[in-house]
Amino acid sequence: MQRNIKLVIEYDGSNYHGWQTQPNAITIQEIIEGKLAIITQKKVNLVASGRTDTGVHALGQVANFYTQSTIAAESLGKSLNSLLPPDIVIRKAEELEESFHARFSARSKVYLFIILNDKIPSAIYRNYSWHLPFNLDIDKMRRSASFLIGEHDFSCFKSSDSENTDPIRDLMDINLFRNKDRFIHIRIEANGFLKYMVRNIVGTLMDVGRNKISVSEFNAIFQSKDRTKAGVTAPPQGLFLKEVKY
Amino acid sequence: MQRNIKLVIEYDGSNYHGWQTQPNAITIQEIIEGKLAIITQKKVNLVASGRTDTGVHALGQVANFYTQSTIAAESLGKSLNSLLPPDIVIRKAEELEESFHARFSARSKVYLFIILNDKIPSAIYRNYSWHLPFNLDIDKMRRSASFLIGEHDFSCFKSSDSENTDPIRDLMDINLFRNKDRFIHIRIEANGFLKYMVRNIVGTLMDVGRNKISVSEFNAIFQSKDRTKAGVTAPPQGLFLKEVKY
Repeated sequence: MQRNIKLVIEYDGSNYHGWQTQPNAITIQEIIEGKLAIITQKKVNLVASGRTDTGVHALGQVANFYTQSTIAAESLGKSLNSLLPPDIVIRKAEELEESFHARFSARSKVYLFIILNDKIPSAIYRNYSWHLPFNLDIDKMRRSASFLIGEHDFSCFKSSDSENTDPIRDLMDINLFRNKDRFIHIRIEANGFLKYMVRNIVGTLMDVGRNKISVSEFNAIFQSKDRTKAGVTAPPQGLFLKEVKY
Repeated sequence: MQRNIKLVIEYDGSNYHGWQTQPNAITIQEIIEGKLAIITQKKVNLVASGRTDTGVHALGQVANFYTQSTIAAESLGKSLNSLLPPDIVIRKAEELEESFHARFSARSKVYLFIILNDKIPSAIYRNYSWHLPFNLDIDKMRRSASFLIGEHDFSCFKSSDSENTDPIRDLMDINLFRNKDRFIHIRIEANGFLKYMVRNIVGTLMDVGRNKISVSEFNAIFQSKDRTKAGVTAPPQGLFLKEVKY
C-alpha cells in the first residue's frame, strides 16, 4: 500500500542551487531524495509546496512523497536527520491521507525577508539578511505595502523571464517591523507567489524607504503592471520560506 | 609619529582557527594584519583583548596597533572592510592615546553563549548555537551560576592544559534567559577568563539543568578547584565574545 508522508523542512540555502533538482548543480530536493532512497530502498519523488531559488532559506518548507515503506513517519524523519548534512533538517514527518499534495493543498505561504539596516555590515548575519546602510522610512514602506493587500495582478513584481504565468495572487497580509534596532523584518502571506515576487516587492519598498520614490509612485508602479518600472530584485540571502499553511 | 589605532571587530569564527596567528592554519589576526600591511604599506602587529578559540565568534573583539600611516582612523576602517572577507567586519576604528592597550587596558569582557534547547536541531543556527535536545531547568542553572559571582579560584573550569595560569578571576555578572522559546542565552562578564572557562562553565551548568547534578553538587565542584570533577567543554560555535569594556 502506498503511504503519503509529509515533511516539514528547515534549510540553510547558502550552499545550494535552490530547492529544485537540476543538472550540474546541488539542490536540496536532490539531497533529500537521495537519502530517502537509501532509507526506503526505492527511488522517491518529492513534491514541494514550491521552489525556492539559489541562496534562499526555509524555516518550514513542506514536501510530500509516496512510499511503500512501512517505517513509521517519525522514524523516517529521524533516519533522514541522521543522514542529511547539518544545513538541511527535517523538523517534522507525518503520514497524511492520500489526497494531501504539498503544492495543490496549500492555502497560503508565509515568507520572511530580513533587512540589516545598519551603517556597518555584519559578519554573523551576512548570509541571512540584506545589508542596507542608508536610513529607511519604515512608516512610508508600511503605507506602500498596504496597497498590495487583497487579490491583485502582481505583474510588476514578477521575474522578467516568467511571461506566461497567471499574475493574479491573493496577498493576505504584509507586515514590516523593526527587530533589535538594526533589523527590519518583512512578513508576507499570500495564496501563492510569482517567481522573485517577494524579492521584487522588497527591492521596490526599499526605494520608498530611502525616498527615491513616493508612496503614491509606489502605487502607480503597482497599478502599471509593468516589471520594468519596479525596483531591483533583493538578494536571496535575506529571504526565508517561513511556513506553508494547509 | 606613531599613532595608536583601536579596532572593534565582528567575526564569524566558523572558518578560522581562532584569533591568534599560528603556523599552517588560517586565523583572524593574520587575515587582518595582512590587509593592514597592504593599506599602511608596513608590517603591523595587532594586539587583541585576548584570543578566541577555533570556531568561536566575536560581536565586539577589540585590538589595537601602532602605525606611522597618516590615514584617518575611520578611513582605515573603511579600507579594511573593503579588503576583508565578509565574515570579518571592522565595526569601528578610532585613534586613541599611546597608552591604550587592547589587553592590559581592558576592565572586563562580556561573553554570550547560546544554547538551542529544542528536540530538533536547526539548519540555520547550526554554527551559532549548541543544540541540547533535553529539558533544561533554567531556574536551577541560574541558582548554580550565582555561586560564581565575585572573586574566586576558577581552577575547576580551566582547560586541562593550562596549569601555570593564575586561576583567580573576578566574575562580575552571569545571566541566563530564554529567548524566543527555544534559545537559552547565557551572558557572563568577568575581568578576565581562563582558557575554555566559559565553555566549561556552560558544560557544567548543563549537567545541573538536566538534573545530572544538584545545585549544591555544582557548588561542591566549584569549591573543589578540580577540573576533572566539572562537566564537558561546551562546543565553540555557541560562544560569542560580545564586548570588551575599558
